Amino acid sequence: MNYKMIGKLMAQIQLLEAVFMVPALIISLYERNISAAISFIISILLIVIITGILRLVCGNTQKRFYAREGMVCVGLSWIMMSIYGCLPFYLSKEIPSFIDALFEIVSGFTTTGASILSNVEGLSKGMLYWRSFSHWLGGMGVLVFLLAVIPTEGKSGGFTMHLLRAESPGPNVGKLVPKMRQTARILYLIYILLTVLDFIFLRIGNMSTFEAVCTALGTAGTGGFGVKNDSIASYSPYLQNVCTVFMLLFGVNFSCYYLLLIKQFKAVFQDEELHLYFGLVLGSIVLIAWNVRDMYGSLGETVRHAAFQVASIITTTGFATTDFDLWPSFSKSILLFLMVIGASAGSTGGGLKCGRALLLIKSLRRNIRQILNPQKVMVVRNNGQMISEKVIENTYAYLVAYVVIVLFSILAISVDGESLTTNISAVIACFNNIGPGFDAVGATCNYSVFGTFSKMVLILDMLAGRLEIFPVLLLFSKSTWVRR
Amino acid sequence: MNYKMIGKLMAQIQLLEAVFMVPALIISLYERNISAAISFIISILLIVIITGILRLVCGNTQKRFYAREGMVCVGLSWIMMSIYGCLPFYLSKEIPSFIDALFEIVSGFTTTGASILSNVEGLSKGMLYWRSFSHWLGGMGVLVFLLAVIPTEGKSGGFTMHLLRAESPGPNVGKLVPKMRQTARILYLIYILLTVLDFIFLRIGNMSTFEAVCTALGTAGTGGFGVKNDSIASYSPYLQNVCTVFMLLFGVNFSCYYLLLIKQFKAVFQDEELHLYFGLVLGSIVLIAWNVRDMYGSLGETVRHAAFQVASIITTTGFATTDFDLWPSFSKSILLFLMVIGASAGSTGGGLKCGRALLLIKSLRRNIRQILNPQKVMVVRNNGQMISEKVIENTYAYLVAYVVIVLFSILAISVDGESLTTNISAVIACFNNIGPGFDAVGATCNYSVFGTFSKMVLILDMLAGRLEIFPVLLLFSKSTWVRR
Repeated sequence: MNYKMIGKLMAQIQLLEAVFMVPALIISLYERNISAAISFIISILLIVIITGILRLVCGNTQKRFYAREGMVCVGLSWIMMSIYGCLPFYLSKEIPSFIDALFEIVSGFTTTGASILSNVEGLSKGMLYWRSFSHWLGGMGVLVFLLAVIPTEGKSGGFTMHLLRAESPGPNVGKLVPKMRQTARILYLIYILLTVLDFIFLRIGNMSTFEAVCTALGTAGTGGFGVKNDSIASYSPYLQNVCTVFMLLFGVNFSCYYLLLIKQFKAVFQDEELHLYFGLVLGSIVLIAWNVRDMYGSLGETVRHAAFQVASIITTTGFATTDFDLWPSFSKSILLFLMVIGASAGSTGGGLKCGRALLLIKSLRRNIRQILNPQKVMVVRNNGQMISEKVIENTYAYLVAYVVIVLFSILAISVDGESLTTNISAVIACFNNIGPGFDAVGATCNYSVFGTFSKMVLILDMLAGRLEIFPVLLLFSKSTWVRR
Repeated sequence: MNYKMIGKLMAQIQLLEAVFMVPALIISLYERNISAAISFIISILLIVIITGILRLVCGNTQKRFYAREGMVCVGLSWIMMSIYGCLPFYLSKEIPSFIDALFEIVSGFTTTGASILSNVEGLSKGMLYWRSFSHWLGGMGVLVFLLAVIPTEGKSGGFTMHLLRAESPGPNVGKLVPKMRQTARILYLIYILLTVLDFIFLRIGNMSTFEAVCTALGTAGTGGFGVKNDSIASYSPYLQNVCTVFMLLFGVNFSCYYLLLIKQFKAVFQDEELHLYFGLVLGSIVLIAWNVRDMYGSLGETVRHAAFQVASIITTTGFATTDFDLWPSFSKSILLFLMVIGASAGSTGGGLKCGRALLLIKSLRRNIRQILNPQKVMVVRNNGQMISEKVIENTYAYLVAYVVIVLFSILAISVDGESLTTNISAVIACFNNIGPGFDAVGATCNYSVFGTFSKMVLILDMLAGRLEIFPVLLLFSKSTWVRR
């Protein structure tokens, strides 16, 4: 294990985090909220000091960097980022319990949007901004950001590749362009562009600048933290529809946008994952709208709520305009189904991902055909391209890890005695980075019902879900830390 | 597809079923229940006539028989067996609805033990016997029985192998002895021996002969149909403990018993699946007993209920001595966990099977290590023996199919508007052939809450679960029916 290299990278990441805290500090100063401002200043100073120490210790280093280091780096840096990130909440006493503050910021960075706060509006604006910004940064990934901005130091292709692979969602992370660093830049440019567009459309609907910034950041990261206690419910139908559209847009594989930019329209419109994603969205909206038709005044209102909730859940954002826990069982089951599937690979959304679901179904079909024709060699294809057996095996392993972690987590958090529906949906909502579940963690409720142990389990679930399990699992594997 | 061969085999199976109905007919005659007796006679006659027709049509045939035919044969014969098997219930009007009668007998043959009856004691003795016997026959498998009893017709090794593979549970069906037919005989001898032992122990506890027969048959098949409305709750603690012990014994891989018979004790005591199975049992009993310690009078009573319920659920029997739906959330989560895992491969129990769970965990661990050492070739071992990649891949595919079927089934039955807990646990309880779930399908409830469509979904789930998915899935695959 190349500890020095990891240390150096960690120092860069945490310095970046300190820089990102500055706008929140400025907002706090502007609001004359001294306690919030001081807590941001202390957090920033602490990070800078520790960065200095890390730099001294890990001064010069060799360049050996393998997949193992990439994974460990991603896992460790997300944990460290979360610990620093929760300091402002904790130091300002706006969230008095450390574990609650940690839960809140992990929920932010992992774009889960599950909150332990019953009164979101009680937070100061600096904190609200920091909460929403954590979604934005976590959505595309902090290491991807680092790759996009830091200057290149000699040959580091393998190094950047391993990092990007470990932090980006999806079964088969592709490069858009031959250079990884360039890929990271393109991804962030598209990301910033879409976020700004979202902000403009929200402002057109007369949302205040501050709320529009926070809502756009939360939508872009498919996070789900709002600035109001009732999430998005009190906004106008226009604003709700803007959110619906942008949530769906941020759930699309970003490589589709790149293909659009370089005018490869055909490749985009023939993308199988895109078909599945929008097929699921449309099908679910129709079924739910039909199922809840008697609950709202007009067809328009019904479709608006159905579309908003479907978009919010499949993209794993977690905003709410209505208490979907009151919907009939069929609609709730559809939402549960969408929770598990999630958004597209290569988007900011969480979940299993449409692309991975597609791969699993295809290889299952291959397996059935193989039983019928044991002699024939069959391959799995996606968009016409052959998928390597290695990718299929890793996708299978992903599903196993997914099922195992979900089962054990449900078992672990059930010590608090909440209902089975609460526990199952809480684990699924955290692991898939959605936010609200059903019953005691429903759309109008929050995660404060759980005890410290359960919150820690859910924190690990959120991290494992966002980082797609392996970077977190590896941290707990003995063989990771064995010297070669 | 070798249709004639399949037809011939189907004829043999249904004739066997007619023979097995005779004891139930005798019981009905002895009880002077004319309506029940007549319905058995009509059913038997109908089967005999159709058998005759099938024999005429499929007279002589070639011997080509592949895995495909084996799978189709198993799938089709179980469906046919169920349709014939439900006739007595339906014709006698003891279960007036056909779909209910079908649900009941599928639940019987698949050893699920989920009932649509609220008053089991209202059934006549002939029907009660037939219900319990269906568990016994389904537990070890009707085709395995056929193999054990029919005379050999020339060389048919491949043929019997395919049938046994398709009907027996577990990821890696092994032969005990080189000849499959001999293996089938040994399995049934052990099965009969254990069932008789169970019967004797129940009789010693003063259970009536009829009840002891039915309870022993239901325990042996790990089915769960009782002859009383309160399942096993009103029996003495001794009788409950006998059931606990025998349920656990029938959840052990039968090859362990064979190894004991041929005095290979070391192989049995080092069996990894056996360790996992009894480890899960003991661990769960301790945790649940601790969790429910305040609900019962004495430590003995607490442990008795905990042990009974753990045995009943992990072996997927589904008997109940207490309403575990009233237990705290932690205990219920443990039961849910055991429901998914299930008994040992090669036992009469259902579920994912301990052996398969072990294989999945081991290959997941291999996958994690592979990330750390991408160059190294690693194999998965069980009891020291290398597991082929083919078996691992099929196990993975099994899990995918499992998750997909469970998700879609939950979605499908949610149209009836029952709670999420009800729907999730109903699907898991049916698919894993357990019987009772939670909430509206809890230990003291039954499946009559569901509509016809949901019952059909659950019937397919039970069949898919018992036959380990692929024989049922293949029936719905277009390529199965394409001529080669």
